[in-house]
Formats: sequence, structure tokens, C-alpha cells
Amino acid sequence: MSLLVIGSVAFDAIETPFGKTDKIVGGAASYISISSSFFYNSINLVAVIGDDFPKDFIIKLNQRGVDTKGLQIKEGEKSFFWSGKYHNDMNSRDTLVTELNVLGTFDPIIPDSYQNCEILMLGNLLPSVQSTVIERLTSRPKFIAMDTMNFWMDIAMEDLRKTMTMVDLLIINDEEARQLSGEYSLLKASRIIRNMGPKYLVIKKGEHGALLFHGNDLFFCPALPLEEVFDPTGAGDTFAGGFMGYLAKSGEISFRNMKKAVVYGSAMASFCVEKFGTERLLELSDEDVEERVKLFLTLSDMGFH
Amino acid sequence: MSLLVIGSVAFDAIETPFGKTDKIVGGAASYISISSSFFYNSINLVAVIGDDFPKDFIIKLNQRGVDTKGLQIKEGEKSFFWSGKYHNDMNSRDTLVTELNVLGTFDPIIPDSYQNCEILMLGNLLPSVQSTVIERLTSRPKFIAMDTMNFWMDIAMEDLRKTMTMVDLLIINDEEARQLSGEYSLLKASRIIRNMGPKYLVIKKGEHGALLFHGNDLFFCPALPLEEVFDPTGAGDTFAGGFMGYLAKSGEISFRNMKKAVVYGSAMASFCVEKFGTERLLELSDEDVEERVKLFLTLSDMGFH
Repeated sequence: MSLLVIGSVAFDAIETPFGKTDKIVGGAASYISISSSFFYNSINLVAVIGDDFPKDFIIKLNQRGVDTKGLQIKEGEKSFFWSGKYHNDMNSRDTLVTELNVLGTFDPIIPDSYQNCEILMLGNLLPSVQSTVIERLTSRPKFIAMDTMNFWMDIAMEDLRKTMTMVDLLIINDEEARQLSGEYSLLKASRIIRNMGPKYLVIKKGEHGALLFHGNDLFFCPALPLEEVFDPTGAGDTFAGGFMGYLAKSGEISFRNMKKAVVYGSAMASFCVEKFGTERLLELSDEDVEERVKLFLTLSDMGFH
Repeated sequence: MSLLVIGSVAFDAIETPFGKTDKIVGGAASYISISSSFFYNSINLVAVIGDDFPKDFIIKLNQRGVDTKGLQIKEGEKSFFWSGKYHNDMNSRDTLVTELNVLGTFDPIIPDSYQNCEILMLGNLLPSVQSTVIERLTSRPKFIAMDTMNFWMDIAMEDLRKTMTMVDLLIINDEEARQLSGEYSLLKASRIIRNMGPKYLVIKKGEHGALLFHGNDLFFCPALPLEEVFDPTGAGDTFAGGFMGYLAKSGEISFRNMKKAVVYGSAMASFCVEKFGTERLLELSDEDVEERVKLFLTLSDMGFH
């Protein structure tokens, strides 16, 4: 099933207790594309960058099977830039700089060859841009997933609610689920959120794993306990990429198959945090991924079989 | 395998966002005994109470297969009393009152008929009392588990370190593991703690599940997502009781079997928090427990089989 990815391709500058980076490549769609490319190599990317963005990263994406015809390059403009500093527990961070730049006027244009995509992943963006993408597709994809964040709940809730009615799966973290629903219990939150539109819901709990909800079905996947979380940036997007890549590869939209997709997404995310930015993802082999998935199976095997 | 349980049998007064109680029966050994009695009915209890303690609760314990010959009743004295108030997120609480009463001078006397026990569970108590119990057993049990808390790390670290060298399993929560080891990463903490004595380690993460460590083996069991956590008091002791009761019943001391014990412990704990104090545990049937364990299996089934 062809996979269309929309999101930011950007620069990040990151500081964690383990060190700091200058401007490095980041952005939701970068992580999603790289992560999904381990499972599937017909990925179409819609995003926008300035002419300051490194061409060799785009070539890397192409080599991994990511089509970048939909990647707009704005001459004389600058790419989106975010800078943040993580606290000692790695569970919270301060945003130091946000420069929207090209993202401020992003008009997502869908190349003709991207039409008829079967799976659509809407990375975290302005909800109105996300819904525009859906509206510009001549036929509705079989499966549409979206990410979002607290920021849009604060300033664009109406647009977010509209976009949520158009998708099949929402992927958010626990804090976002609590804000969106007004409920602390994630079970209660999941019902309220699924009444807003998406039939499927993934709630990511960072180091505490991830939950998948559909109807009365519930699945929990742990996060892999790690020696160190070096840099959490992009872990959520990497999860989404692994999840969607696995779905695209297997071609089966079902709860049972999405459970496996959660495991693959969690495995990819567990790599992402081991180094700064996309560095760890770009050095992985398929064997690394399969071995990591086996670790997840061992970790959660209750021994009853 | 016969199970010997040492710990507090006491009164609690609890306030949660859902309500508050007058003095109700609590204490580590009460929860451990009741929880383990679902799996095994040759449980020997060593504890101390005042003459203010309700006799009908002791009768209930006896009816569940708990031998109370080792339960000292101090005439004219009062039982241990703790009072606490939980905050809205249920993850933190304030202690309002602690009256040691009979626990202040507790001298654990082991009845002759309790000797030759095969499994020993040392509930949270002064570490020197825990080690005294081990020393008063004429033969070392096949398996010794202990609980402890931050308080003893603050005021009795030397005694705690000594007791830890005498046991096979330590059951503590994540906050305690971090304080005991000085490491935030639970993987790193687990190695440091196991170098202090216990070969096996369980780290309970409350609503985020529990980890079992032994050598290079690692197992994670999720907590059951719940609509509401009504009262978390005793959940950790109930976990320990289910764990030890299952071990005692099965008679097999192995990592594989302890994984199942963690699941049974987690299932019991998930009931405990549904009502105040021991109320929910006392109304459960064996079928309720087996059904709950099945929920855990479904929850964490990754769908690869």
C-alpha cells in the first residue's frame, strides 16, 4: 500500500544532559520517512524547506525509497527551526527558539503521481494544513493517521476537531490525550477522543510504553528499558513512522496487525533516542530492527505458553 | 511450599479524591496474607497488634488459611496507625499521622510450628526486625523476599544493607530503586541494587507496570489501565502477596515462574485499588482472579503467534 507522509522537514538544535548540537536535520516528516523506510520503499513526501537545507539529506531520503517530488524548496527562504533543552529527567523540555520560516506559509501541493495513495500519515502540523491535504486527494486513502500537539489544542481547537473527524487513527502522547479529553484516566480519555472521530487511537507514554485502542480492544506495548535516553527528540515521530511503514508493508488494516505495528514503532523509537537527531536511525540495518523487535517479544513474554 | 509472612497488621485512615475512611484495617502483612491466600492456604503470619484490633478480621484471615499463632496481641496497647491523604493524580500522598504504638517495640517471635518454612516474605518493617526474623529461623528458607521503603534508606541504611545481603528477592518501587541506587535509569539501578545482595529484583512502577530482573533476564508486566484508581493503599503489598502466593503454590523458584508470579501479583493489585483498603480483595472469587489474569494476557499479546 503506497504511503504518503506530510509534515515538517526542518532544523533542530538540541541540548540534553549528555551534550548539545548545532543545527541538525529534524522535523516530524524526516523521522517518519526514515523510520517507515525500514519497512516499505514507496514513500511519498510532502513538505517544505528553505534553500538552506542540506541537499545530501534529501539524497539520503531518496536512496531510502522516499520520493521527494512533493518537497517544496523555497529559494531565498529559511527552513523551519526549533531549539530546545531537555531537563535532567528527560521527561520535560523547554523550547528556546521557534522560527516558523517557510512553514508559516506552507501550502501543501500534492503531485499528481502521489494521488491514489492508500495510506496517509499526517505528521504534526497546523490542523488546517492537515485537512487541506485530505481535501486535495482525489480519492480518500483507505487509512488516514494523524499526529497533533497541545499547541494546536490551545490555539486551533476548532480546526483540530474538524481534522479529527476526517481520520481513522490519532497518535498522541498521554499528556495530549489528557488535555484533549479533560480526563486523567487514559481509558476514559480514549473513549472521549474516539467519539471525536478516529476509530483507532494510540496513546504514547514515552518511557512507559504505548496503548492502542479500538472498540473494546486494548493493547499495551512496553517501552524498552534503556541504560540512557540520550535525546528523545523525534521518538514519537519515529514511532509513527515504524507503525505506518509496517502497516503499509503488510497491507492489512486490522487491530491485530496494528498491535504488531505498535511493536515495530516502539522498536524504532527505542533506537531513535540512543543518539542525537536522526543519527542512530540512519546507521541501522534491517537485522538490527528485527533483533530489537525480538527483545520486545522477550521482554513482555509472560511465560504462560 | 509453606509461606511465612512478616509485616504490619494495622489501622489506616485514608483520604482520596473519591472519599475518606475512618480507621480501617490495613498494614503490609494484612494485604500480603489476604492476597497470597488466593493461591495458597498454608500461610503463617508473624505480626503484632494491640487489643483494639477487630477480632473478626483475624477470624477472616484464619478462614482464608492464614495461621495467626504468630500474631502477638498486646493487652492494653494500641495497634499501629497510619493516616494519609492522596493528591488528585493518586501518584503522591501526604502522611498525616503515624502512630507506631505496638510496632515501636515489636520483637518478632517465631512459633515452633512456623520453623522449616520454605518461603519467607518480609513485609516493609524496620530492616533490623527483618534480619532478626531470618536469624531466628533454624534453617534458611529456600527463598526469601523483602520489601522496604525510602524511610529506612534515610534512617537505617546500614541495617538495610545488611538485611539485603540475606535475601533472594527485593520488591520495591521505582522511586525507592532510584534512591537506593542513586541512578535514574532503572536498568542501571537494577544492577547496583542486585550487587547489594538480592539476585532477583522487582521494581514496581504503579500505574506503569512492574519489571523483574535476574542476571541478564528482564521481564515487564503492564499495569491494567483502569477507569479509576479509587485507593492505591496496599497495592504494592497486594502485589507482593499475589507474587509470593503464586510461587508458594507452584513450588518452583525460577525466572520463568516468577514472570507468572509478577502477572498474578499485578492482577491482585489491580483489584486492590478498586475500593478502599482490603474491601475489594475480600469479596473476590478465584474466578475473578483468573479472569483478570486473562485480561493481562490479552492486553500484552503482541499478536505474533
